[in-house]
Amino acid sequence: MSLLNIPLIIQDTAAIEGDMGMLWMLISGILVFLMQAGFTLVESGMTRSKNVVNIAMKNVLDIAVGSIVFWFVGYSLMYGSTGGWIGWDGFMWYGGEDSSPADLFFQTVFCATAATIVSGAVAGRTKYSTYIIFSVVMTAIIYPIAGGWQWNGDGWLAQMGFIDFAGSSIVHAVGGWAALVAAALVGPRLGKYIDGKAVNIPGHNKLLAALGVFILWFGWFGFNGGSQLAWGGDDATGASMVVLVTNLAASAGALGALFLSWVKYKKPNIDMTLNGALAGLVAITAGCGNMSEVGALAAGFVGGIIVVFAMEFVEQKLKIDDAVGAFSVHGVAGFWGTIVIGLWGIDGDTGIGLLNGGGSDQFVTQLIGALAYAAWAAGTSFVFLFILKKAIGLRVSEKVEIEGLDLSEHGALAYPGKRQREIQD
Amino acid sequence: MSLLNIPLIIQDTAAIEGDMGMLWMLISGILVFLMQAGFTLVESGMTRSKNVVNIAMKNVLDIAVGSIVFWFVGYSLMYGSTGGWIGWDGFMWYGGEDSSPADLFFQTVFCATAATIVSGAVAGRTKYSTYIIFSVVMTAIIYPIAGGWQWNGDGWLAQMGFIDFAGSSIVHAVGGWAALVAAALVGPRLGKYIDGKAVNIPGHNKLLAALGVFILWFGWFGFNGGSQLAWGGDDATGASMVVLVTNLAASAGALGALFLSWVKYKKPNIDMTLNGALAGLVAITAGCGNMSEVGALAAGFVGGIIVVFAMEFVEQKLKIDDAVGAFSVHGVAGFWGTIVIGLWGIDGDTGIGLLNGGGSDQFVTQLIGALAYAAWAAGTSFVFLFILKKAIGLRVSEKVEIEGLDLSEHGALAYPGKRQREIQD
Amino acid sequence: MSLLNIPLIIQDTAAIEGDMGMLWMLISGILVFLMQAGFTLVESGMTRSKNVVNIAMKNVLDIAVGSIVFWFVGYSLMYGSTGGWIGWDGFMWYGGEDSSPADLFFQTVFCATAATIVSGAVAGRTKYSTYIIFSVVMTAIIYPIAGGWQWNGDGWLAQMGFIDFAGSSIVHAVGGWAALVAAALVGPRLGKYIDGKAVNIPGHNKLLAALGVFILWFGWFGFNGGSQLAWGGDDATGASMVVLVTNLAASAGALGALFLSWVKYKKPNIDMTLNGALAGLVAITAGCGNMSEVGALAAGFVGGIIVVFAMEFVEQKLKIDDAVGAFSVHGVAGFWGTIVIGLWGIDGDTGIGLLNGGGSDQFVTQLIGALAYAAWAAGTSFVFLFILKKAIGLRVSEKVEIEGLDLSEHGALAYPGKRQREIQD
Repeated sequence: MSLLNIPLIIQDTAAIEGDMGMLWMLISGILVFLMQAGFTLVESGMTRSKNVVNIAMKNVLDIAVGSIVFWFVGYSLMYGSTGGWIGWDGFMWYGGEDSSPADLFFQTVFCATAATIVSGAVAGRTKYSTYIIFSVVMTAIIYPIAGGWQWNGDGWLAQMGFIDFAGSSIVHAVGGWAALVAAALVGPRLGKYIDGKAVNIPGHNKLLAALGVFILWFGWFGFNGGSQLAWGGDDATGASMVVLVTNLAASAGALGALFLSWVKYKKPNIDMTLNGALAGLVAITAGCGNMSEVGALAAGFVGGIIVVFAMEFVEQKLKIDDAVGAFSVHGVAGFWGTIVIGLWGIDGDTGIGLLNGGGSDQFVTQLIGALAYAAWAAGTSFVFLFILKKAIGLRVSEKVEIEGLDLSEHGALAYPGKRQREIQD
Repeated sequence: MSLLNIPLIIQDTAAIEGDMGMLWMLISGILVFLMQAGFTLVESGMTRSKNVVNIAMKNVLDIAVGSIVFWFVGYSLMYGSTGGWIGWDGFMWYGGEDSSPADLFFQTVFCATAATIVSGAVAGRTKYSTYIIFSVVMTAIIYPIAGGWQWNGDGWLAQMGFIDFAGSSIVHAVGGWAALVAAALVGPRLGKYIDGKAVNIPGHNKLLAALGVFILWFGWFGFNGGSQLAWGGDDATGASMVVLVTNLAASAGALGALFLSWVKYKKPNIDMTLNGALAGLVAITAGCGNMSEVGALAAGFVGGIIVVFAMEFVEQKLKIDDAVGAFSVHGVAGFWGTIVIGLWGIDGDTGIGLLNGGGSDQFVTQLIGALAYAAWAAGTSFVFLFILKKAIGLRVSEKVEIEGLDLSEHGALAYPGKRQREIQD
Repeated sequence: MSLLNIPLIIQDTAAIEGDMGMLWMLISGILVFLMQAGFTLVESGMTRSKNVVNIAMKNVLDIAVGSIVFWFVGYSLMYGSTGGWIGWDGFMWYGGEDSSPADLFFQTVFCATAATIVSGAVAGRTKYSTYIIFSVVMTAIIYPIAGGWQWNGDGWLAQMGFIDFAGSSIVHAVGGWAALVAAALVGPRLGKYIDGKAVNIPGHNKLLAALGVFILWFGWFGFNGGSQLAWGGDDATGASMVVLVTNLAASAGALGALFLSWVKYKKPNIDMTLNGALAGLVAITAGCGNMSEVGALAAGFVGGIIVVFAMEFVEQKLKIDDAVGAFSVHGVAGFWGTIVIGLWGIDGDTGIGLLNGGGSDQFVTQLIGALAYAAWAAGTSFVFLFILKKAIGLRVSEKVEIEGLDLSEHGALAYPGKRQREIQD
């Protein structure tokens, strides 16, 4: 009888740990959901008041479309049993034995995040109808297939030993590369380049941009911490450690960009500081299960530094008008966050550096993965957007752009006070 | 000895599941609390800048009054052992064996939500002193008694087999009907109807309205998910499923309203889209434990469609000036969410349609409940507001209304920049 | 065999309760993190638009600096084994057996809260570079040493039987006293006192201030509830009770200030009401584990009353320009919240009043603790700020102050619409 009892106890404990894991994942998913609000605020705060309604409408759309499309087709493409390159288990599938509605919800809000990264880059001149179609493509095809390469256990990158704990490449760089391609194809905003020189178009509400960054930082604890996908025993400590290093990396990223902007521009710049915090978060997302605190600080700090240079490079050298720096924050820092694991990543359990005993292999693996995601996201985005450009056009007319997308595309001003029209940029 | 061990194990597991359930309820209640911020933003964003302070003061009041009043008297009226129509177990009672401080807190924030729904409908012309009294009445009497009919196990609707998992009728329709009656009795804002035709009074900040909707959507995961009232085993999966279908319904509601507004008004409208998302949330609130994903999508989509028609009907046919569409969102979609369970609700455990084996009875039961809540909320609100109208008046003077309630009722402008007075609508 | 089973079961239960406690602490810490956003909104909403970027930059800085500094040195100073007056266990230490990354994270966000309280008081005229240094001092030295007196088990106040459950004194009064000293040393804003009379400088956005208060209230559930530091069994009920009484005290504080302002100024005032809610929260923070519901209501209500008088006293008698009332909210209400435990605090387990059987001793102990924290925070702040004043100066030039810190210190306007310069105060 007593021999029977022992398995009974163990089973109960396992069931309870499973329940705790589901609780943590569900709550984490709820936190990640709020990131849509953060993106809305950052994107609209960093751009002009005449396009605020349009940005809000794109972000609402992304979560609405993403939730339905990812449930209908994306989850199956990502986690389906055919694995390898493209999963499939039929429509409206949400999981076999290892899965749960909490997992589907958690993955759904990740998918919507990848889509919404694009919306900021192309702010101020993109057709809403075209954006809808591209949002469907992102959430139905581009993101789920990319995700399956790693987070489907049979994915080819997972099989290679590639590490991307919470999605520096899978979510952020995929969104970031798509954002760059979209910004390039749709072209710069009117007045962005005059005589070949970039003109600064200041965002209309820095306070809401800052609020947005705090909300994103807050949601990111769920984004990274929830990616532990479990709670209990080592997983409880592990997920807590993930949250701790996530916060350190964000802090270091903010300070890195703050001080660099101070040195470069003589004043501590708020746009840079906010983007630095986000870059720090993106930079730790892949490695948050494989970083010491010092490693996380270094990864985030470098993320905050490179985002400043990346934004300048994209704006002044590439002459691509990424209205909020989405590519620099998500694409460049996402790339960095992916490869830094091969530089000073550690084994999360033992604390031993991955370079000890095959670390250079790990670096190569990380580089392959980061390049694969860059190629996939940039390539597929280009194909779909090129088709859309030829078929229905990406861009509103000059008249609409000058008037603002809010009035022309949505028939409403964001701040319809009597004089708003005069006040707005 | 081993026979003794088995009950010991089971007992421990039950205690732990109880603890996990309490954790989920407490966190859910905290999420629901933030919905007060969401309401504040939606209501002020969708109305004029000269009444923003007043709206914020009403929402702060609702949670402050509601928290104290519901603890003092409401919880006893709702859950007291006399059950049936009106519960009672004395003042400051918070629960017998099955209860906990977490439950009282969770129910408190629900109560405040019901009260705050009214504040948006009557924005811009209602006396603050009168509003305070009505807020007390809502949280002390109207809501708790309504809630007890179903959520007190002995309630007459609970006994009938009525289903309202998280309160489409109990919270939202009760708040919505009270909002309609209040808006009718207080009368339309000056300038809302000119020569019998409704004039659009645009909200002063669409971005904050959108932020408010995201916050409400976020809090709603606690609202619906926490209504599982437990965590562990089937309850963990059940609550996760609730969150999943809640998100799907909100998404479908947003898209339904977005596309309908596009067809009707030629442009995708932000007010409609935001209200559509909220209507989708309200529409799934009663049935979130009894809906397949497809059923949730359909319920939310229809919710998003009917809210557009309902807003037009209230504004143009009833000629009642519901400043933010509170009745359409909470009352009409709440009614719809209650009866849809009788149409395509399923048994949450077996997945079998409720129509199979007595579903038409279920529809009748749902209809009885929805009508009972409508009658109760509209009737009691009318009585109390009619008395208040005769006794102290509901409405500010014309001068105060034109000047704005912020300055006259509260002595402060929301945005006191030098020229705000000229800028504001 | 069966004898072996019993300890096995108990051990498992303890491990699971430990895991649940860690989950609650981590989630609570995440909620507390968002309080930085709340502070940013309250502080900027209650001050002028020309200093918004500066306030956001200070709040981002506080969490960034605080996170790194507290991890590097603060946690060791606070919880290190040398205990008593100053702990120490070396740099980058985060805990021995009883600790975890969740605990370090939780304590980190508390530390950042203490620092950020100062930023509002000195808004509108303080050098950013000086603020950075003081933020480091607060998070590296002033707060950690103060915290260790009580929350390090060996701390001298802990040994005396002092009670400060979640930090009315340790976090809020320490921050509040530092804020008062800083506001006094930096001097009033230009135009604040004309002919010795205080001039009201209205905040530029009351709606965002209200949103900030809702976010702070929301985060406070984690602040106080998470300070249970555990979950499971009595701790689950205990933490839930903490959340319940926290909400009641906030509600009573809001109503106390609302009605007092109505009586004093003839109109219900939003600034007072919002600060009243915060004062209610501060007033229950020390005693939230030692208060009945009625006691919490009374503590919060008195907090809401005294904050109104304190703000007048500081502004008109002391003639110290605390731009957002930080000292009154955090310092005075924090002092009150500390000593009220000696008046009507109860034993959290038995519910017996602390005055029964030695309560007057408890009052004396609370008073000693409250005075010790006041002396420590005011004294160390004075020393560091005095040195900073002499060495590099605390204050920007008159020209910079008039122009606004946003443009001069950060090179950016918060709301750079064409006419913002004319509109802003």
